[in-house]
Amino acid sequence: MQQTIQKKTPVTIVLFSGDMDKAMAAFVIATAAASMGMPVSIFFTFWGLNVIKKKGGLIKGQHWMQKMLNIVNYGHARKLALSKLNMLGMGPVMMKEMMSKKRVPSMDEFIKTAAALGVKFYPCEMSMTVMGLKKEDFIDECGEVIGAVSYLSIAKESNINLFI
Amino acid sequence: MQQTIQKKTPVTIVLFSGDMDKAMAAFVIATAAASMGMPVSIFFTFWGLNVIKKKGGLIKGQHWMQKMLNIVNYGHARKLALSKLNMLGMGPVMMKEMMSKKRVPSMDEFIKTAAALGVKFYPCEMSMTVMGLKKEDFIDECGEVIGAVSYLSIAKESNINLFI
Amino acid sequence: MQQTIQKKTPVTIVLFSGDMDKAMAAFVIATAAASMGMPVSIFFTFWGLNVIKKKGGLIKGQHWMQKMLNIVNYGHARKLALSKLNMLGMGPVMMKEMMSKKRVPSMDEFIKTAAALGVKFYPCEMSMTVMGLKKEDFIDECGEVIGAVSYLSIAKESNINLFI
Repeated sequence: MQQTIQKKTPVTIVLFSGDMDKAMAAFVIATAAASMGMPVSIFFTFWGLNVIKKKGGLIKGQHWMQKMLNIVNYGHARKLALSKLNMLGMGPVMMKEMMSKKRVPSMDEFIKTAAALGVKFYPCEMSMTVMGLKKEDFIDECGEVIGAVSYLSIAKESNINLFI
Repeated sequence: MQQTIQKKTPVTIVLFSGDMDKAMAAFVIATAAASMGMPVSIFFTFWGLNVIKKKGGLIKGQHWMQKMLNIVNYGHARKLALSKLNMLGMGPVMMKEMMSKKRVPSMDEFIKTAAALGVKFYPCEMSMTVMGLKKEDFIDECGEVIGAVSYLSIAKESNINLFI
Repeated sequence: MQQTIQKKTPVTIVLFSGDMDKAMAAFVIATAAASMGMPVSIFFTFWGLNVIKKKGGLIKGQHWMQKMLNIVNYGHARKLALSKLNMLGMGPVMMKEMMSKKRVPSMDEFIKTAAALGVKFYPCEMSMTVMGLKKEDFIDECGEVIGAVSYLSIAKESNINLFI
């Protein structure tokens, strides 16, 4: 295995999922890549926006359907479900405990570490519009709001492109 | 961010999922890329085949299990579920309404736009065989039926490869 | 379509999912690529570890939560669920039957073929730690246990990177 650390191999991740386990996988890859000197961008779209929502940040739209989404889609980094074995929230609790026992960082810590390592966080413009979310609903680590064209401009310069 | 539009950066997407939200994400990326002059190919496999099935296009196999799949897996572009919050079909209805209010195109419109922009649609041969589907079960925008080897021949020339 | 088989175009797959249909898609791509002379690596992480667990290989950790995971997450290549239409196990049974009727190999056969074609299987270190799994819980085809940094070193040399 080549362990030679080559600088400047960009990594671009579309984080579509809001599941804790998938977000965790995205951040493990992102922080590892950033620590190897690779420029990393994460484009948060659809349910992935939950990962970077402020605690208590609600979908702001006036439409009754956007209000209803607040009830069924109440999420932020400390409150994400698992893609499997969610078991009414028991799964994520178990997973967090097992991770903390093994000294794996929590989502909150992952977000802070990633930001400190220079990982760029881009919320997706279209998903925000559909869900009635505004820039101020997201954590401070969040960068510029971009659309699919800007995502593609970044992705086409990346050697590693993942959709999670 | 580099906004320079470089022609000829191919994008290849495997659309495995038949969920409306994931198919939507695939088509947002595909149409944005095609509008930037990138050659785009979508390889529809497993549940992703539902996205390009004709309305009323049924799984044709004679095997009772293929017939049963018709009942549980009845899908086409206007009738896809959400990966989350499907709520017995309420989720997709809400999502469609919210999207149309924000002038986001529907799946049907996305398919037509993508085809008009030259996005290539390839149904996966093996999945069609397993599910008893024939070329004529798919919408007219559909291209050649190809297998994994042909997919890989396209993918290895692509800078952006996604599995959705 | 370019059918020219170019050697040495590496393919790297993160197999995060333990769903039968997604694992199948990963192995169809992996074996097709390997048969075209491409070096293929699969990095098994989170639920994907189930695919390469020995039959009866249990999560070994002493923690009650790891023991509980054994009950809810009992999986190996012959006993994976479908991502859709699982129907209490009926789905995978039907899918297996339909596949065998069409002469599509089973997961077990896919694993053996992939290994014979030189596909490299890497279990993810962090996921193993969290789940209390050891190298000996995996099938013999399994290679070195690696972390995210080693995965990235392989991925950055790959033309096709997929997250499944």
